[in-house]
Amino acid sequence: MYPPYPPDLNAAQKEYLLSNLKDWSIAHGLAVRPAPSYVQDDAGALATSAPVTLFPSLFPKVCFEQARSVARAYNELYSAIASDEGWLRGIVEELVEIDDFMASLWKVYLAVKEEGYAQSLALGLFRSDYMVHVDQSNTAKASVKQVEFNTIASSFGGLSSQVSGLHQHLLAIDAYPDELSSLINTSSLPESSSVPSLAKGIAKAHEAYGSSAEGLPTCVLFLVQDPERNVFDQRHLEYALNKTHGVRTFRLLFDRVLQDTKVDKNRKLIYTPPHTPSKHYEVTVVYLRAGYAPSDYTDQSHWDARLQIERSAAIKCPTVLTQLAGTKKVQQVLATPHSPHLARFLPDQQQAAAVLETFAPIYPLDKSEAGNEARRLATDPASATRYVLKPQREGGGNNIYRKAIPGFLKDLPESHWPAYILMEMIEPPAQSNTIFRNGEVQSGGVICELGIYGACLWDTGADGKRDILENFEAGYLLRTKGDQSEEGGVAAGFGAVDSPCLVDV
Amino acid sequence: MYPPYPPDLNAAQKEYLLSNLKDWSIAHGLAVRPAPSYVQDDAGALATSAPVTLFPSLFPKVCFEQARSVARAYNELYSAIASDEGWLRGIVEELVEIDDFMASLWKVYLAVKEEGYAQSLALGLFRSDYMVHVDQSNTAKASVKQVEFNTIASSFGGLSSQVSGLHQHLLAIDAYPDELSSLINTSSLPESSSVPSLAKGIAKAHEAYGSSAEGLPTCVLFLVQDPERNVFDQRHLEYALNKTHGVRTFRLLFDRVLQDTKVDKNRKLIYTPPHTPSKHYEVTVVYLRAGYAPSDYTDQSHWDARLQIERSAAIKCPTVLTQLAGTKKVQQVLATPHSPHLARFLPDQQQAAAVLETFAPIYPLDKSEAGNEARRLATDPASATRYVLKPQREGGGNNIYRKAIPGFLKDLPESHWPAYILMEMIEPPAQSNTIFRNGEVQSGGVICELGIYGACLWDTGADGKRDILENFEAGYLLRTKGDQSEEGGVAAGFGAVDSPCLVDV
Repeated sequence: MYPPYPPDLNAAQKEYLLSNLKDWSIAHGLAVRPAPSYVQDDAGALATSAPVTLFPSLFPKVCFEQARSVARAYNELYSAIASDEGWLRGIVEELVEIDDFMASLWKVYLAVKEEGYAQSLALGLFRSDYMVHVDQSNTAKASVKQVEFNTIASSFGGLSSQVSGLHQHLLAIDAYPDELSSLINTSSLPESSSVPSLAKGIAKAHEAYGSSAEGLPTCVLFLVQDPERNVFDQRHLEYALNKTHGVRTFRLLFDRVLQDTKVDKNRKLIYTPPHTPSKHYEVTVVYLRAGYAPSDYTDQSHWDARLQIERSAAIKCPTVLTQLAGTKKVQQVLATPHSPHLARFLPDQQQAAAVLETFAPIYPLDKSEAGNEARRLATDPASATRYVLKPQREGGGNNIYRKAIPGFLKDLPESHWPAYILMEMIEPPAQSNTIFRNGEVQSGGVICELGIYGACLWDTGADGKRDILENFEAGYLLRTKGDQSEEGGVAAGFGAVDSPCLVDV
Repeated sequence: MYPPYPPDLNAAQKEYLLSNLKDWSIAHGLAVRPAPSYVQDDAGALATSAPVTLFPSLFPKVCFEQARSVARAYNELYSAIASDEGWLRGIVEELVEIDDFMASLWKVYLAVKEEGYAQSLALGLFRSDYMVHVDQSNTAKASVKQVEFNTIASSFGGLSSQVSGLHQHLLAIDAYPDELSSLINTSSLPESSSVPSLAKGIAKAHEAYGSSAEGLPTCVLFLVQDPERNVFDQRHLEYALNKTHGVRTFRLLFDRVLQDTKVDKNRKLIYTPPHTPSKHYEVTVVYLRAGYAPSDYTDQSHWDARLQIERSAAIKCPTVLTQLAGTKKVQQVLATPHSPHLARFLPDQQQAAAVLETFAPIYPLDKSEAGNEARRLATDPASATRYVLKPQREGGGNNIYRKAIPGFLKDLPESHWPAYILMEMIEPPAQSNTIFRNGEVQSGGVICELGIYGACLWDTGADGKRDILENFEAGYLLRTKGDQSEEGGVAAGFGAVDSPCLVDV
């Protein structure tokens, strides 16, 4: 589908491109802390270029625009789901036996519900991830299909603006050979507004919270993990909040929530920085870059911490319900063929149709009608090659691909089958790129995943009637990984941050 | 002279300040490549925070303003010296036997002079370095005294803007304890405009050069060393040139001048980037960040390279004569008590008086009248304690301090004495700070050196009448080193970049 790309570089071209890439990335904070396997750094003072592609990957312009065009509809959809407790309860109840994590999150929700929520505003900084899908029966047709929808800790927005800046710089300084100029040029490289847009989302929530009734200074808390190698990604958002919006931010380790915050009698979340114990801040927004995965909750204190945040009057990004709305199970029930759920949450038919276009069919492996079809597709070696089997449990990993599916199911007691969903494989066009990571250069076939960020601030309303205060697209992310690895993610060391070079296909 | 400063931090305060410093510095390119002694990095992909002070060092406001107030006069002075071949010849002739380097530079000048210079414009990006001097007879009086004047490769301008940004950020996020607020506040931390101002200096020269008569694309060359750990300092200037002024820049290793450039029949300097051998650029400005020290010239090819640049029509920053104007010997003859030279180059009496105020007395150790006085001062153990003995030879190092001087001279044959100059020690006020460097934190007494950058573009004129086209102050640098080391320089590992916290004294 794509023209030959990228070109082979001779030694001088490679040296020019790489030395410029290495310097520009550090000079502009397109960086990560190095992995211990790369270099031991007890002082935490070293950094290296974030894993990054040498060239912007080719990406169909029509697909890029398709993904952007549904960003606001997705914000609408997921804010609706996150506001529908009754519906979400049904989802959770189906999973409660196979997924302790969801069950525990639900318990946090129930506890706060019993007490009554102190904050009706909710902030979503979402990211909808897509791959380009080429219809095998009509290879001229490319569209995006959704891989997943992230409602918590959507990362790399802080770096994405920088990657698009890097590739534009490399273009401007002639690091890309002239014969590429019909492909890579200023009009084919879209900027990513992810840093200013995500920061604006948080700033809008901060503003909507208002000032402290007690006259305390206010702040936004970034709830973070320790260690965090991807710290600069988060810092760029902080610096934009500080500089552009004059919003005070603090990083708080998930481990320190119980020590450093308290919920006062009016349920305000009060943060006391350890370095200024006599100063107290009222927290307007808690932005979770931790607490999204089971591994963040190693003992009960972490659940107590999550509860403390949830019951406070701070605006959560996200609330527990919003996090639950992002589970794979929700994606599955929306994307099951003939599902009635999409129309329920997105009554605008045009919007719903556009969103539906981005779904790859997903089936449950249960006793429903769709489940029966799924069993047939998954056990037949011929049809199975078009599918991937994914555990319903959150946390990723352990996917079963294509022809391995029938054998895997044969060995699995049928009572355990409902713990999996069957998803039609997205078939991305073949393409290649070169990745710079940990000081090493690797070239080969790659798969690109486009993420579109969305920011949404809504009021769940005392009357159960949702009111959307802010709803905007918030930039993009392109992540690229070698096509040999069927699991991925830049931070885990499998991929790189990238930016698209838009092409007509 | 100063109030107690900086405060002792408790563990939580230190952790807060340091973690913010480490992240902000990398996110904003306030970085260096790590020294091999710190970490081995064959791929050249690691970076670390530039050595930096945790607090902005106290600095008398009156001294800061004094140093800035003479910036334009110094530009005037040194452009005049660099335009006076006859006078400089006298200086060089005095040194030719003790300093091969100056002799070789002079030979380059003579060779081009014989052929005739192809470019009458010259660019100076200068930095005048000062320390605060407290008159021991009147300790209420603080003024700046010049340490040296740099006419070539004045470094750290690229980082200085960032350090001032760092300290302002740390102030804004409350990393400095409240009890300091009368000292550190937004009005006591001056911004450094060094990045935009130095870039503007180069851009003005680029513009003055004009377009290529042959219709070639034009560019500015940064002549650099390999390896260069302080690369981001240089890169920030490049990026400002690219972005703000739309000027194309290339880094060229001093070792590669003869391979990658040629001087055409019209003496234009033509650069052919190795990565695009079919593209030729006409060089408007050569900005030397290499070629300033004897160690850069390891064989004849380097002198051939320097000659190639000097005889070309590119604007040199600096020319050979401008580099020679920056030798210690020139500083000495200007600063010798009752010297007539300052008035010669700076006829404006008010300007000359202001510049004279910044001189610490410097004496030759020759047979002149001033030399006789110097011999007396240097050999008397009582008076020697107020002086430092410096070799006239360029390149730094091997200074003899205070009470070591008489013994040193006793062991040195008197015929070798003229190879040294005697300079009155500048007596800076005692102060302390904490430096973060190579992942380590060190606290103690420090000495601060303030550099004021100046940009000057002048036309030496066919008629020998100099015409100044641009003359402006170009930001500042504060460098701070431990007061135990009497040699210094951040890149060499002895000090840190800093920014001033201005105080009334």
